[in-house]
Amino acid sequence: MPEQNFHMTPDEFRKYGREVVDWIADYYENVEKYPVLSQVNPGDIRANLPVDPPEKGETFEHILRDMNNIILPGVTHWQSPNFFAFFPANASFPAILGELLSAGLGVQGMLWLTSPACTELETHVLDWLVEMMGLPGKFKSDSSGGGVIQDSASGAALCALLAARERVTKYETNKNGCDGRLVAYVSTQTHSSVEKAVRIAGIGSNNLRYIEVDETFAMSPDDLVEQIELDRYAGLIPFFVCATVGTTSSNAMDPLPEIGGICREEGLWLHVDGGMSGSATVCPEFRTIINGLDYADSYCFNPHKWMFTNFDCDCFYVADRAALINTLSILPEYLKNKATESGAVIDYRDWHVPLGRRFRSLKLWFVLRHYGVDGLRHHIRRHVELAQQFAGWIKESKNFELAVPAPLNLVCFRYIGGDEVNKSLLEKLNKSGKIYLSHTVLDDKYTLRFCVAQTHTEDKHVKDAWELIRQVAGELGK
Amino acid sequence: MPEQNFHMTPDEFRKYGREVVDWIADYYENVEKYPVLSQVNPGDIRANLPVDPPEKGETFEHILRDMNNIILPGVTHWQSPNFFAFFPANASFPAILGELLSAGLGVQGMLWLTSPACTELETHVLDWLVEMMGLPGKFKSDSSGGGVIQDSASGAALCALLAARERVTKYETNKNGCDGRLVAYVSTQTHSSVEKAVRIAGIGSNNLRYIEVDETFAMSPDDLVEQIELDRYAGLIPFFVCATVGTTSSNAMDPLPEIGGICREEGLWLHVDGGMSGSATVCPEFRTIINGLDYADSYCFNPHKWMFTNFDCDCFYVADRAALINTLSILPEYLKNKATESGAVIDYRDWHVPLGRRFRSLKLWFVLRHYGVDGLRHHIRRHVELAQQFAGWIKESKNFELAVPAPLNLVCFRYIGGDEVNKSLLEKLNKSGKIYLSHTVLDDKYTLRFCVAQTHTEDKHVKDAWELIRQVAGELGK
Repeated sequence: MPEQNFHMTPDEFRKYGREVVDWIADYYENVEKYPVLSQVNPGDIRANLPVDPPEKGETFEHILRDMNNIILPGVTHWQSPNFFAFFPANASFPAILGELLSAGLGVQGMLWLTSPACTELETHVLDWLVEMMGLPGKFKSDSSGGGVIQDSASGAALCALLAARERVTKYETNKNGCDGRLVAYVSTQTHSSVEKAVRIAGIGSNNLRYIEVDETFAMSPDDLVEQIELDRYAGLIPFFVCATVGTTSSNAMDPLPEIGGICREEGLWLHVDGGMSGSATVCPEFRTIINGLDYADSYCFNPHKWMFTNFDCDCFYVADRAALINTLSILPEYLKNKATESGAVIDYRDWHVPLGRRFRSLKLWFVLRHYGVDGLRHHIRRHVELAQQFAGWIKESKNFELAVPAPLNLVCFRYIGGDEVNKSLLEKLNKSGKIYLSHTVLDDKYTLRFCVAQTHTEDKHVKDAWELIRQVAGELGK
Repeated sequence: MPEQNFHMTPDEFRKYGREVVDWIADYYENVEKYPVLSQVNPGDIRANLPVDPPEKGETFEHILRDMNNIILPGVTHWQSPNFFAFFPANASFPAILGELLSAGLGVQGMLWLTSPACTELETHVLDWLVEMMGLPGKFKSDSSGGGVIQDSASGAALCALLAARERVTKYETNKNGCDGRLVAYVSTQTHSSVEKAVRIAGIGSNNLRYIEVDETFAMSPDDLVEQIELDRYAGLIPFFVCATVGTTSSNAMDPLPEIGGICREEGLWLHVDGGMSGSATVCPEFRTIINGLDYADSYCFNPHKWMFTNFDCDCFYVADRAALINTLSILPEYLKNKATESGAVIDYRDWHVPLGRRFRSLKLWFVLRHYGVDGLRHHIRRHVELAQQFAGWIKESKNFELAVPAPLNLVCFRYIGGDEVNKSLLEKLNKSGKIYLSHTVLDDKYTLRFCVAQTHTEDKHVKDAWELIRQVAGELGK
């Protein structure tokens, strides 16, 4: 006879679980009816929530009703096929079910011991991805390196920077702190997460060099080597370069062979950020973007952006796992155990900032098995085709221009007429609720970004978007 | 007519979603039948997984079958009521449904704009918790401070340390890097995450002082003030203290009023780590443990440990949100938007390391509403009662001893007879699969830890555990 308790029973969970599953299925069937960008004003959502916390428990029916009435109007629909903003965070039903099972099992995989399957499935799936994505063999766990799931490319960049910092200072910085002479290199287009990491790591943003880019917004190797020499001449210690495969702003591809050669020559840690575009290498024809990845000490890409795996799931690889582990490992008494002491297991707590970790490989495993390599390739290719089709329309139109060539699935473009008209265009498009785009600035010009990577985006969505863009732009002229 | 695709359809999701919901309900109904600690050996799980990734998609039936046959044997059952190890990661059905909805919506809440409800619900629920848990009003969003959900107490400690570092150096370290003179303070019992943060932040572990503890393993304020003076005399810059409410090793409570007074006097940032035990303050009678929290610049506790909210959910509060935001904010062009510029909204990306973020407040909201304050109090109290009952049995037994007084729900104890016999006892208990305990070392003695905080742990589980411990210990003597 169980004690009195306030828990939901397994049978209630069966009932409400079904309701939530149906709620989600309904949501996907109807998602195109909602404005993609939430139209609420600051404070609107909070105004509908009670000021005081509930003293007594409430029914699940009540909670679910509030999901519809209060929460949903405040949601920007990242899973709408009409979401073309930023980089996406595309999800899929198999991934959602993997996340559900992970939440249900509720394991905390800080150590191999605390759920061997959580660690071993992660290692296994990340090894699979090395094969699937055409990555260098040194990133596999049976080599010197290995992979781990991080929360985000920001977390990955931070860990890469820290391992690089420790390698160049022979693990002295961990003990004695930064000495102010370490210098890191990115391009002017590199994601802000690297500057954030440089600040966090005590390097200081004044010790971060922004290397100039060429006309495609890719890092200039000549400028990089010149800056490294200047810094060495000044008595500084160059130690880290982050190159990007598909920058956030415009999907520029930094030249890995040249940058990698420089890093090898100069003894610098090369981290490559594959963010969204890394997912493209599941298709052999797109692997040219990672030519030169053999030079990298670390690499990441985000299945939570463009590989149908709901946020968070960043795959982070290192060529030398000892450098990462020696940087981040601390072993207090209460975590000691025979499996760890044996050296025969991986304890992923030593591969990232947090100690605790969820069973995130489940959702990735579900995605890989549900789609198979063939299914993933089909959808990635289709997104690229649709984006290229859109880029073609832009090129053909006399009223629009491409800001840069579109290498994959991100199209950066402008309506002829200057910054203000493009700002108005974007605002009207997003305000319509029919599509959601975001912007950047390239060559000092306000530029619209159209990214095709949402799971359910098809030909008709891209066609409708182009129709709408032309129509709204046309009205602006009047 | 939809294009050819490899997606799971909404109707298939309804079908398989039900199966997964049932799978989880079955799992909870049967969880006591599995060995709590997984009994597999290193490599066992991987040996059952195919070497190569799947070329073709597979059926969901196949995936779910492998969950049972391959994954489940490798799971250590954190959700078993017989899990007494470490600090728990207790989950509940309402939380699991919240996580499911979060995965289903798939929003990425880096900016207010990218899903206003994701930001506003989080702010709202964290304000509720200030009321519910008896926390200082300065942590509320309508004051100078505010709360945010972090992945873990490790992430929270890192952010606190960084904000402290920047405050004391007037935001110069972010620019110029660490200067090697900053000194941080913890006790010998503080969680290793703070040393990890000190290393990450470029402070260096040699600049971290481990202050001695008293006989309850609580930080000694006299030793703290003495060490601060020594460091100042040596030309160093004391800037950060982490005090703990319920240390991981033995649940020691650092004296916040004294430590807080010292920090106020000396101008040091006080971070208080409430890890597991912070959840107890939902009950007014346990709020003595946070007496003195008014002095804190930051505080965290983990609903993912002892408040029925599945991992990850760490609530992190700061008294001065500007210090945190100024430390972590970088605003590239592609994230600029009118809402951010208006200053009327919170962009939580500036409150932690990652840029992207899930809709984690949903699960916390579901828990608070399902249980209500009354329900949470009931279960927290019951866990403390059960632990105190267990501690009473230890005290009464002539063969066992309490290692330290048990203030709440963690009991540290030993079998009479020395380290080796206690190691054997722990090993045999965990090998039995009937219960799972972990260990620590206190006063140089190997010590067993018995933590009562799993969602479904009741009287009978604690009684059975005590029976088993006595029985196995008795057999050891033979």
